Amino acid sequence: MSTIDALKWRYATKKMNGEKVSQEKVDQIVAAAQLAPTSSGLQPFKIIVVSDQGLKEQIKAVAYGQSQITDCSHLLIFAAWDSYTEERIRGVYAHANKERGLSDSANADFVNNMVANFTSKSPEDAFQHAAKQAYIAFGVAITEAALLKVDATPMEGFEPAKLDELLGLSALGLRSTTLLPLGYRDTAGDWLVNLKKVRTPLQDFVIEFK
Amino acid sequence: MSTIDALKWRYATKKMNGEKVSQEKVDQIVAAAQLAPTSSGLQPFKIIVVSDQGLKEQIKAVAYGQSQITDCSHLLIFAAWDSYTEERIRGVYAHANKERGLSDSANADFVNNMVANFTSKSPEDAFQHAAKQAYIAFGVAITEAALLKVDATPMEGFEPAKLDELLGLSALGLRSTTLLPLGYRDTAGDWLVNLKKVRTPLQDFVIEFK
Repeated sequence: MSTIDALKWRYATKKMNGEKVSQEKVDQIVAAAQLAPTSSGLQPFKIIVVSDQGLKEQIKAVAYGQSQITDCSHLLIFAAWDSYTEERIRGVYAHANKERGLSDSANADFVNNMVANFTSKSPEDAFQHAAKQAYIAFGVAITEAALLKVDATPMEGFEPAKLDELLGLSALGLRSTTLLPLGYRDTAGDWLVNLKKVRTPLQDFVIEFK
Repeated sequence: MSTIDALKWRYATKKMNGEKVSQEKVDQIVAAAQLAPTSSGLQPFKIIVVSDQGLKEQIKAVAYGQSQITDCSHLLIFAAWDSYTEERIRGVYAHANKERGLSDSANADFVNNMVANFTSKSPEDAFQHAAKQAYIAFGVAITEAALLKVDATPMEGFEPAKLDELLGLSALGLRSTTLLPLGYRDTAGDWLVNLKKVRTPLQDFVIEFK
């Protein structure tokens, strides 16, 4: 299936049927998100994968009771770094250097510049910037789910502070940004499934300079 | 090619060879971005497609002289709404209702709530929220380019205010967020192409609750 066909097939599933998504497919969706590009390669976010039903019930309570949270197979939570710290930035490049067989002195000036640049952001600017990187991976994960014919519901509708508290994210220096329940549509119970997919027409979406 | 293989193949191309990307492929990448999901379906951004070489030269001057801007085939610019206005929000739902054969009275309460909710955001919060939606589509476009074996360089490194001025975006109520030059890698001239792709290891990237 082409990406275009997959993206036309997908929709923000409102009712899931409880069927499990195979671990292999969940792993592929997470792996795609892990490969998403991010600013300076920092990958300033983590993905939390919840399949525990009791925890899903608790999360649903801070997500306006949306049924996909508990009817899904696996709930992905994208959580961004709450700040850019010297330790985090040096950690990323030390790992990259090691994997590439480079010494840390090879790019010390570059890394020092990155530390100075990123740690100069205000806490809120830093979080907003990190969150945007998570949204790139969110887009990649949504695309991969559709290509695998796994249904997914991109969600911003939840109470982030309460979810962070529930999952202990503050202690990890993380703040939740988006949810992505993965599962399979319950066609009979979903009011959205048969509504025509509508997008901004191309002539209003694209500006060309050629 | 699987998405995983495509994402491993892609990299932030540092040197492009000037070869043209077919219009068909550019159209597919833009169509994928157009199909990306966004908060409440608002699609609060546009994609600007630049193939004019003179304009690319001017854009390069506000993008720290990065050569991909002029060596690429097509430069995509993702530009988000600078604010959520009643007119914009009502316009989106009026279009959707028309496409779906619904009367505007069918979901008037819902639309009124959306207007109240989105227009209550501060201008900066509104722009940050709209920008994040553009980042979802950015992730989708990057994935589709890779699947089509088109090289691309995701870029935040430019001067948004100067680019907005150059393209007259303020008058359109838009602010540039990211650039995505599309083209083909110049393998001999690219310092990054042969460096190992490194990502945060899975055990540091994923937190599981099962």
